[in-house]
Amino acid sequence: QELIDSISRKLQVLREARETLLEDIQANNILGEEVEAIVKDVCKPNEFDKFKMFIGDLDKVVNLLLSLSGRLARVENALNNLDENTSPEERRTLVEKQKLLTQQHEDAKELKENLDRRERIVFDILANYLSEENLADYEHFVKMKSALIIEQRELEDKIKLGEEQLKCLTDSLQPERLK
Amino acid sequence: QELIDSISRKLQVLREARETLLEDIQANNILGEEVEAIVKDVCKPNEFDKFKMFIGDLDKVVNLLLSLSGRLARVENALNNLDENTSPEERRTLVEKQKLLTQQHEDAKELKENLDRRERIVFDILANYLSEENLADYEHFVKMKSALIIEQRELEDKIKLGEEQLKCLTDSLQPERLK
Repeated sequence: QELIDSISRKLQVLREARETLLEDIQANNILGEEVEAIVKDVCKPNEFDKFKMFIGDLDKVVNLLLSLSGRLARVENALNNLDENTSPEERRTLVEKQKLLTQQHEDAKELKENLDRRERIVFDILANYLSEENLADYEHFVKMKSALIIEQRELEDKIKLGEEQLKCLTDSLQPERLK
Repeated sequence: QELIDSISRKLQVLREARETLLEDIQANNILGEEVEAIVKDVCKPNEFDKFKMFIGDLDKVVNLLLSLSGRLARVENALNNLDENTSPEERRTLVEKQKLLTQQHEDAKELKENLDRRERIVFDILANYLSEENLADYEHFVKMKSALIIEQRELEDKIKLGEEQLKCLTDSLQPERLK
């Protein structure tokens, strides 16, 4: 019961952190819209297009990279925890999955590298038009955008883990389950 | 035994198709290298850079899209084949997976749409420099590149399925397995 209370309190803290984080994300999105409005005003349409595409690809590639790292870590974790009772079939499946995910993870990392190069290209374009302050806003917005996605993912994972632990504990303390 | 022979023959045909496909892929890669050499010669470095990034992202995004469609199809298939013995827990896990994969699939589709726009941007750049013939080579190379990846994936899936069927049948005909 003490453990349950401790995990519940931890979950409470995590959920509050999530609230704050969602506010940060919203604030950053507003900054992004402001930057976008300025860019649209001052840049050529094809340059604005590049800006939009880069921003649009950014969270997708970051999310993809995080999701693949997570899955790869889980498969590698499962592989490390195999015991002598594991069937060769099961081990083979896991090794194959690991191979596939490693390849996809490599691909996603390369997409991210190209995206970083596109970030610099877009920065160079914007540098021709924006004031120092607006340019700093753009850089801050982009950096925060990935950072906030990463933080959000970590927080969601921790909350999910806590909820599972809590469910496990509650179930184990309640030997007679009502159907 | 008749079924085994039939599947074995089908696998043989598929493997020959794979050989031919690999030759096609190699031929297309050579065409790609020729186009790249010309582009490098005639375009500005930053334009060549865009060309390279687009080509580099192309197979990654197409592969990603295919892998996500495949996984999504498998999860939806599993969901459609649930019977009354399935635990709510199991069903919940599948539905959650489906939700996650649907989102990732949407993201990948958007990445692909942006990639298609980048293809047109690169095309417009190259149109300033290349002869009609070289431009046609570029278009052919790009179109074939995705088409060949898709074909390769389908073929690999079919071969894998055939191999699994064959293994199942062989195992079932051999009641005493030597360890």
